[in-house]
Amino acid sequence: MPGLQHDSLIPLYHQLKEVLISTISEGDWKPGDKIASENQLMEQYGISRNTVKKAIEDLVKEGVLYRVQGKGTYVAKQKLEQPLTGFYSFSKVLKEKGMNPSDIIVEVKEVEPCKEVQQALVLEKKEKVIVLKRIRCANDEPIILEESFLPKKVVDDIERLKEVGTVSLYDLLEREFQVFVTRAKEAFEPILLEEEASQLLQTEKGFPALLLERTAYDLNGVPIEFCRSIVRGDRCRFYTELI
Amino acid sequence: MPGLQHDSLIPLYHQLKEVLISTISEGDWKPGDKIASENQLMEQYGISRNTVKKAIEDLVKEGVLYRVQGKGTYVAKQKLEQPLTGFYSFSKVLKEKGMNPSDIIVEVKEVEPCKEVQQALVLEKKEKVIVLKRIRCANDEPIILEESFLPKKVVDDIERLKEVGTVSLYDLLEREFQVFVTRAKEAFEPILLEEEASQLLQTEKGFPALLLERTAYDLNGVPIEFCRSIVRGDRCRFYTELI
Repeated sequence: MPGLQHDSLIPLYHQLKEVLISTISEGDWKPGDKIASENQLMEQYGISRNTVKKAIEDLVKEGVLYRVQGKGTYVAKQKLEQPLTGFYSFSKVLKEKGMNPSDIIVEVKEVEPCKEVQQALVLEKKEKVIVLKRIRCANDEPIILEESFLPKKVVDDIERLKEVGTVSLYDLLEREFQVFVTRAKEAFEPILLEEEASQLLQTEKGFPALLLERTAYDLNGVPIEFCRSIVRGDRCRFYTELI
Repeated sequence: MPGLQHDSLIPLYHQLKEVLISTISEGDWKPGDKIASENQLMEQYGISRNTVKKAIEDLVKEGVLYRVQGKGTYVAKQKLEQPLTGFYSFSKVLKEKGMNPSDIIVEVKEVEPCKEVQQALVLEKKEKVIVLKRIRCANDEPIILEESFLPKKVVDDIERLKEVGTVSLYDLLEREFQVFVTRAKEAFEPILLEEEASQLLQTEKGFPALLLERTAYDLNGVPIEFCRSIVRGDRCRFYTELI
């Protein structure tokens, strides 16, 4: 590994990050490998423990490394690549990669919509919605926290939603409620994870994430679903083709 | 404004955030308005200064509020909405909104590419690249920090790039170098701003941002540009249509 330039304007922790990243990208450390200890890095580069800690902490937040309590720091698996163009199904993308998708249903219940949901679904004043909140996992690792809001006038029987997980939500809407989703608008922005979401996603508060908001429409252009997803930034990367 | 539930499982700072957001979305506070002071909020909701500070700090990071040193906290302008489908031009999007785009050129120089750039541009071992680093502004507010890497064998004269800012980079590539960009691949992920980027973008370290990486190809499918953009998450939101 190359050394660090102690007289550079570039902070030492940043230089160390670059060195660690290139060690990984050159294949010297592979996913699942344990990296050198704090003490080893301090000694090798002649830097303080704080500098080492800061570099490693950043790389953990960025999903390049992960820590195992009491054991050490390891190289993370590659991020999940997800297409953003066209309707994509999280479970289909995972299956294509030979991974096992699964859902943990956090809640399915009738609620009063907040203002944002009311506007997105163009609801009357007193109209209720069904919220379906689930944690979407890849090989049992929580990746996305997803809340779907559906007008109660469309989904009049909550029980018939509970099969979701074995059947996709859109397939279920077709089969049980004769609703066909044909079009969607999606907006997204980077956010920092809050306490609750970070707990459900088994990661840490303040980690980077993507907030995706989708409104899906039926054949007649009527909004059928408003969905708010929080996607772990340390585990996912999106891509799209522009022509 | 509704009160807070002191016996709820939902943390008080989170409840306060919701209240402040709905006050804004109902139009009681408008962009540019000064919000109630810390003392007023403490008194009105019977909460500690720390709780108020935490709620406001989060909303500043999320781009809902902004602080003016020694003056107070204000409601931010709406985020810039940017399309992600199809080739989009930052300056074109701004002009359509009646805003004034401008670029600050940080540097244009010849460098040795890092491994990632080398791979993206499929370069030979000793090939050099030209890096064009600029801050892209909307009404003089820095929004995007953009680094374009171009193979030196394509852009053989740095001087002819310096007109960028008055002419778009792709228009310049066409006119000066007879290179026609026709297709691109884009990948993006949420990140936390680092020191250097946060200074250039006049915001704060640790704020959420989007890292966009684009590879653009010419008519023959040869990679012509690798571009790494850091987009302020507190000021931008992306959208796309799925059909």
